[in-house]
Amino acid sequence: MLQQLFTPSVQHTLDLIGIFVFAISGALLAVRKNFDVFGIAVLAEVTALGGGLFRDLVIGAVPPAAFTDLGYFLTPLLAALLVVFLHPEVERIQNAVNVFDAAGLGLFCVAGTTKAYEYGLGLTASATLGLATAVGGGVLRDVLANEVPSLLRWDRDLYAVPAMAGAGMVVLCIRHEVLTTFTSALAAVTVFVLRLLAMRYHWRAPRAWNRRSTATEVQ
Amino acid sequence: MLQQLFTPSVQHTLDLIGIFVFAISGALLAVRKNFDVFGIAVLAEVTALGGGLFRDLVIGAVPPAAFTDLGYFLTPLLAALLVVFLHPEVERIQNAVNVFDAAGLGLFCVAGTTKAYEYGLGLTASATLGLATAVGGGVLRDVLANEVPSLLRWDRDLYAVPAMAGAGMVVLCIRHEVLTTFTSALAAVTVFVLRLLAMRYHWRAPRAWNRRSTATEVQ
Amino acid sequence: MLQQLFTPSVQHTLDLIGIFVFAISGALLAVRKNFDVFGIAVLAEVTALGGGLFRDLVIGAVPPAAFTDLGYFLTPLLAALLVVFLHPEVERIQNAVNVFDAAGLGLFCVAGTTKAYEYGLGLTASATLGLATAVGGGVLRDVLANEVPSLLRWDRDLYAVPAMAGAGMVVLCIRHEVLTTFTSALAAVTVFVLRLLAMRYHWRAPRAWNRRSTATEVQ
Repeated sequence: MLQQLFTPSVQHTLDLIGIFVFAISGALLAVRKNFDVFGIAVLAEVTALGGGLFRDLVIGAVPPAAFTDLGYFLTPLLAALLVVFLHPEVERIQNAVNVFDAAGLGLFCVAGTTKAYEYGLGLTASATLGLATAVGGGVLRDVLANEVPSLLRWDRDLYAVPAMAGAGMVVLCIRHEVLTTFTSALAAVTVFVLRLLAMRYHWRAPRAWNRRSTATEVQ
Repeated sequence: MLQQLFTPSVQHTLDLIGIFVFAISGALLAVRKNFDVFGIAVLAEVTALGGGLFRDLVIGAVPPAAFTDLGYFLTPLLAALLVVFLHPEVERIQNAVNVFDAAGLGLFCVAGTTKAYEYGLGLTASATLGLATAVGGGVLRDVLANEVPSLLRWDRDLYAVPAMAGAGMVVLCIRHEVLTTFTSALAAVTVFVLRLLAMRYHWRAPRAWNRRSTATEVQ
Repeated sequence: MLQQLFTPSVQHTLDLIGIFVFAISGALLAVRKNFDVFGIAVLAEVTALGGGLFRDLVIGAVPPAAFTDLGYFLTPLLAALLVVFLHPEVERIQNAVNVFDAAGLGLFCVAGTTKAYEYGLGLTASATLGLATAVGGGVLRDVLANEVPSLLRWDRDLYAVPAMAGAGMVVLCIRHEVLTTFTSALAAVTVFVLRLLAMRYHWRAPRAWNRRSTATEVQ
């Protein structure tokens, strides 16, 4: 068991912030896909809670936090409500989705890695599950919206790599017993900044060998 | 713990009816998508059992009922068999899908909410999980058929709202300790009737503010 | 509890082989879909571990083997790496996907059925879960790649039927207490050969009655 990183109320507030920003990203995609208000609420909930729900099922933490904490459930509804009434004009949506998503990515990958380790998983498995917590909601969001997950597409800026870096920082800190509030926050901010840089400078990952120049894009 | 609402055999029969009608809806979509007989059977099973399977994983009721009750497994196969040989002509399929789906929606949202509460979830979480039980199978069905889930589309008649009303009725009855066979049945019938009315009069939910008149439809 | 079929190290090696071949199939599809190297790794992991992960969640074996055995996690990464650098030319890809997939199908349906029975499920449920273990990864792969799952399409050669035959052989062997290393291997090879024959001679399952001649293909 790790020492308590944050006071419970600070931890809870950070969780709610992560949930809120992911929910915003889900709700904005729902607006872009022209879903109705209930579809917007569902996509906000799924994006915000899907990754953590998957993590909790895997580590056997049932019922998952998503169903025991009323705040976790209500926060995405608040985000959906805000988006329904205040969503930016269509042209600005994609940028907003991505910035909010980057913040959620950082918060969730740190929280997910830490929780998985607390439940007894190994370091590699904890980092993997932290990554899955961070990207899982977005993958579910894209699957429900019937799109190829952003995560997998070569023509999208780096997304998994920043989260990998963050999850890696957390398990290194755990291994060397220097995981504190400060190092956790540093890992989350690192993910956020790396992701923003990836978007700003269009960092992309290579595709399979010999296909970079000749392949035609699918979808 | 709630008092037993129904005798076990009545409860079991209602479960099987709900499973059967959802399986019909899944099998009919599979026919419409031109799947082979095994694809029809798989989509019938997933539509019928997917929502309850999700609920059981969330509340920690493993192995889920779908894998312990042979009747739950065989009923969708029977439904698939009927659809393979007796499916109505193509033009009539959509209506049949929707009416069967409405009946399943009512039965599953009441049963799901009740079971979630029996496993110790709060009232809001129970209603949410009841809703997820009711709509989960249909969402999985649409995802496997590679369609945007009906649940989320603005151009479909109200689907989640009737189920929300039913789940809300159940938790109100639980809270005021008046959940009986009669009130449960009333909640299920309410869902069914509201859904049929929504289809008859094309009740639809609004989309995000300011987009109703200007948006062009996606998909 | 069954008697131990294989020595632990033999069982583990077979598991890793199944994981490897499924991962190859996932990675090859990712190359075909033009995903970047991280997308290739993710699809390799999901295809290889998705079916077993689903089985472990259903039987309550948490944390699932996918997250406790480092070899299970690293094998798909190795497969993804091989595919990134050595993937065959595009024209040869589909055949390779299918042959690897057939091998994984056999190994996973035998291992899945056996493990489900060891965790106390009935014979029918064990066979069903074995089938789900075998086909689950491929279904997740296709859903993430935003394609209609091969499993469900009428215009694909028989896929589920060989796995059903294999799972059926395993539960028959369990019932008659003749499940040994030899009979298990026989079941796995039967699946593999049946699947290869289905591909070689284009065995297909019928669609719903009266639609075979008139239906136009969807997707």
